Amino acid sequence: QLFETLLLLNVMRMKRKTHNCLPEIILFALQIYLIIRRFSACRLERTPQGGEWLLSGIICINILMLGCALVSSSAFNVVAITPVHRQIFLITLLVLTMLWMLFYMVVTSREDRAVLFKDRHAGPVWLKAGLVLFGLLSFLMDIFKIATYVGYLHCDSPVKVAYPIVQAVFLFFQTYFLWFHSRDCVQLHTNLTRCGLTLTLSTNLVVWMAAVTEESIQRYDSCTEVLSSNYGAKKCTCSHMACETFKEAFYYLYPFNIEYSLFASAMTYIMWKNVGRIVDHHKHHKFNFYVKDVFVGPVAGLLLVVAGLVIFVLYKINILKEDKEKRNKALLIHFIMNIVIVSLMSLSTMIGCIIYRLDRREYVSDKNPTRSLDVGLLVASSLGQFIISYFSLVATVATGAQGYLNVLNLAWAVVLVVEIGLQNYFIIEGLHRQPINVMQANARAFQDHTEMANDVEGQISRYSISKKPSWKRRVLREVCAFLLLANIILWIMPAFGARPQFDHSAEIYFYNYTMWNAIVNIGLPFGIFYRMHAVASLFEVYLRD
Amino acid sequence: QLFETLLLLNVMRMKRKTHNCLPEIILFALQIYLIIRRFSACRLERTPQGGEWLLSGIICINILMLGCALVSSSAFNVVAITPVHRQIFLITLLVLTMLWMLFYMVVTSREDRAVLFKDRHAGPVWLKAGLVLFGLLSFLMDIFKIATYVGYLHCDSPVKVAYPIVQAVFLFFQTYFLWFHSRDCVQLHTNLTRCGLTLTLSTNLVVWMAAVTEESIQRYDSCTEVLSSNYGAKKCTCSHMACETFKEAFYYLYPFNIEYSLFASAMTYIMWKNVGRIVDHHKHHKFNFYVKDVFVGPVAGLLLVVAGLVIFVLYKINILKEDKEKRNKALLIHFIMNIVIVSLMSLSTMIGCIIYRLDRREYVSDKNPTRSLDVGLLVASSLGQFIISYFSLVATVATGAQGYLNVLNLAWAVVLVVEIGLQNYFIIEGLHRQPINVMQANARAFQDHTEMANDVEGQISRYSISKKPSWKRRVLREVCAFLLLANIILWIMPAFGARPQFDHSAEIYFYNYTMWNAIVNIGLPFGIFYRMHAVASLFEVYLRD
Repeated sequence: QLFETLLLLNVMRMKRKTHNCLPEIILFALQIYLIIRRFSACRLERTPQGGEWLLSGIICINILMLGCALVSSSAFNVVAITPVHRQIFLITLLVLTMLWMLFYMVVTSREDRAVLFKDRHAGPVWLKAGLVLFGLLSFLMDIFKIATYVGYLHCDSPVKVAYPIVQAVFLFFQTYFLWFHSRDCVQLHTNLTRCGLTLTLSTNLVVWMAAVTEESIQRYDSCTEVLSSNYGAKKCTCSHMACETFKEAFYYLYPFNIEYSLFASAMTYIMWKNVGRIVDHHKHHKFNFYVKDVFVGPVAGLLLVVAGLVIFVLYKINILKEDKEKRNKALLIHFIMNIVIVSLMSLSTMIGCIIYRLDRREYVSDKNPTRSLDVGLLVASSLGQFIISYFSLVATVATGAQGYLNVLNLAWAVVLVVEIGLQNYFIIEGLHRQPINVMQANARAFQDHTEMANDVEGQISRYSISKKPSWKRRVLREVCAFLLLANIILWIMPAFGARPQFDHSAEIYFYNYTMWNAIVNIGLPFGIFYRMHAVASLFEVYLRD
Repeated sequence: QLFETLLLLNVMRMKRKTHNCLPEIILFALQIYLIIRRFSACRLERTPQGGEWLLSGIICINILMLGCALVSSSAFNVVAITPVHRQIFLITLLVLTMLWMLFYMVVTSREDRAVLFKDRHAGPVWLKAGLVLFGLLSFLMDIFKIATYVGYLHCDSPVKVAYPIVQAVFLFFQTYFLWFHSRDCVQLHTNLTRCGLTLTLSTNLVVWMAAVTEESIQRYDSCTEVLSSNYGAKKCTCSHMACETFKEAFYYLYPFNIEYSLFASAMTYIMWKNVGRIVDHHKHHKFNFYVKDVFVGPVAGLLLVVAGLVIFVLYKINILKEDKEKRNKALLIHFIMNIVIVSLMSLSTMIGCIIYRLDRREYVSDKNPTRSLDVGLLVASSLGQFIISYFSLVATVATGAQGYLNVLNLAWAVVLVVEIGLQNYFIIEGLHRQPINVMQANARAFQDHTEMANDVEGQISRYSISKKPSWKRRVLREVCAFLLLANIILWIMPAFGARPQFDHSAEIYFYNYTMWNAIVNIGLPFGIFYRMHAVASLFEVYLRD
């Protein structure tokens, strides 16, 4: 529409046959350039229209719903739908996804016009590293699973061996695929690629659901051990000795598989959003990373990480002991440590928010899909921790918070809610503020071009003249560095198996077992994802300030 | 950034002191006008930055999580958290929301600068009418509740009477508020208004959760009647005669309260999105509504509606009978009728999609937040029906689909999935196609301004010369009209209480009762909302074509 009008204007002007054509044409070209830049900045991506993303969306919804129905019915009705049915469904999905990935890697991505742009913000290092780490641990889980179920082959379905084999192959395929292609903005076969990506996305989500369910069932079985061993003895016994050990081992590795599926889903989703997108290469600001100005934050953070690791190891050792006294002591120390960490974080985040108020800046005004997605993921994944904390809170308050463990549990839930709320605010505000070097660049550009001073001068001198950062910026960086390290230790503890939610039994008694298990098993993986995502986002805030 | 550059250009040009200033200035003004128009079209709303929407979001999440925890624990643990606790929480929320609404209506909306713009797309007639209808029925429910619990006052908590009273007042308040203010784009006290709106939103969602839970518990109690009456007799008996009748009555009215909360949530969400938005008044195209060209679609649709109503009444009469034979017959007729309706809809949607392929058009390229929201709501609410159908499908297939009722149930689930997928495609594609009158207007404008013909001529003549719509457009309108009426009957049946999901017990046996109840009670209200929303969207597609 705009271009039509411009064309018309052009034609009209040509007709008028003005005398001095040259400056006008230059001016005109300049304006067109400006408009195009504005245009491309405004709609950085070609928004996928109508039917383009619709087909892939419909496929995704259908697979997800069918998967959800199958997984839940295999959990609730063990007679008609056995885990074997579920696994056959999963094998089909995994094979289909691998076929598409093979097609993509061999055909689509090889062609010249296929990937013209790369989205530099997609697939950041932390996501890729997490993917490989969790992928390796999931692979280990599959090995243990195969070893276990081989022992049952003489009396159980061979599908139980086939599924981990297919999944192990899939892990390699998908990790390779996402490592090399997660930044692609595909321009060719867009419809097929979109459908393939939603197939991958829904496969990962169904695998995630299945893993959550399997872990819950196994945990339940090990709680009601007598029943389970009776049932097992009657029906089918393992043919080799190491069976029980392997079973124990892969049970502890489920959380990593759950995390792997979440990571892969996030990356696939970003790829799906990027299909057909045209990336503007000019809008990148380089951020410098230097640590020399900060000291208190990193040191305090490192101390916290070391202390946290020590407590974590002590906790893991003591919590498995038979002695109830020792278990309670381990819980006590773990609760206190966590409350201390989270309180310190809340305090420093509050300081950061006060600094924001003192050091007001412009907001970044352009629309940035990656940032919106980042913020969305941050808020959405924080819901996981929120829901666990609130359920914990209600249970403890309702039972009157008797005993020091319950009081500590309550306090932990409250400070966690406060901390996550504050931290979300801090990160999102930080990501939306104008970065300091952009302000400097703008200010300098402005200075070069014009001499109309007065009003603006103050702002410019404040930022561009002083090379050494002001105390406000220094404090902000200290806060960022401290929060970053604190989030790392809060990530390590639940990710490597500290689950006070199950070791401290107040909530299990209050809600029934199934419900509390469902809440923790759905909420906690998101909580772990939240910590990793927060680390990455805090790093970005650190660089911008 | 752009304006800065323009300013600089302006200053530079002033310095150069060109000779013929006038034409250049005019040109310049024109370009600025163009850029501003482009600018305002591109960012129709001021996207709320960083902290602005964050606080309200945090409030919303916290209330929702706390509400979720309270509601579920009052359902799962009847000892520590009774319905009285939940109702006290709800009363607090309702009173707070009413206070804010009062503040908004008395203070904020009275000021001159408060509401400069109205979003004409927000709060459409169907949403408002639905709100009032469901509001009245919810009010009736509250009256019955009050009458019932007054009878228990001598031995039960007075909170049980207070809650429906407060809710009845709230219904009037909120319906009045949404009726008059749902289109406001608030510009004053934006932060407070955002927080107030998310408070309203989360209150409605918590009320929704509470209503779903209460209905499930009552349904469960009436299933295991002996246990419930024993418990009731031991503890507390009603002091007046009509108690049981009232109880029965308000039990049947729960679905309307659930719908009311969903409607109010949708409207509040749109208001929240509109806070601080600046609406462009120029971009409105008037659509004409005329029916004279269509005949087959409306007539077939009306026949379907009448037939559906007859079957629905027969179903409601027969399903309550003691005789199992008659109940099965009612189910049989209901299933067959639904399958016929849904198959016809699929068929006509397929015809519509083929016409889309034949009559290719440009897509509307501007970003429109209301349309995105419409599409999002459509897809999200369709998930409700999807999940019920898939769970039904898995249960029926797994049990081998024995007996004609199970076969029909299976067939119904399959055709529903197909129909909703196709209909979503049809509606979304229809909303994204360039409307016919815009194309005509564009074509005419183009014709007036330029004589460069040839290539474009074909397109223009195709649309603007023929006043009578082509056969393709006519068929599309027939399809829209038919689908619209069919969606109305599919809305009426579940909204007014046809629940074959519970009358046909295959799924209840397959999943356990609690789970199937949760699925239907969460999925069905969204399914009902989907039908109403589809009717509205189809009407828009009808007008555009």
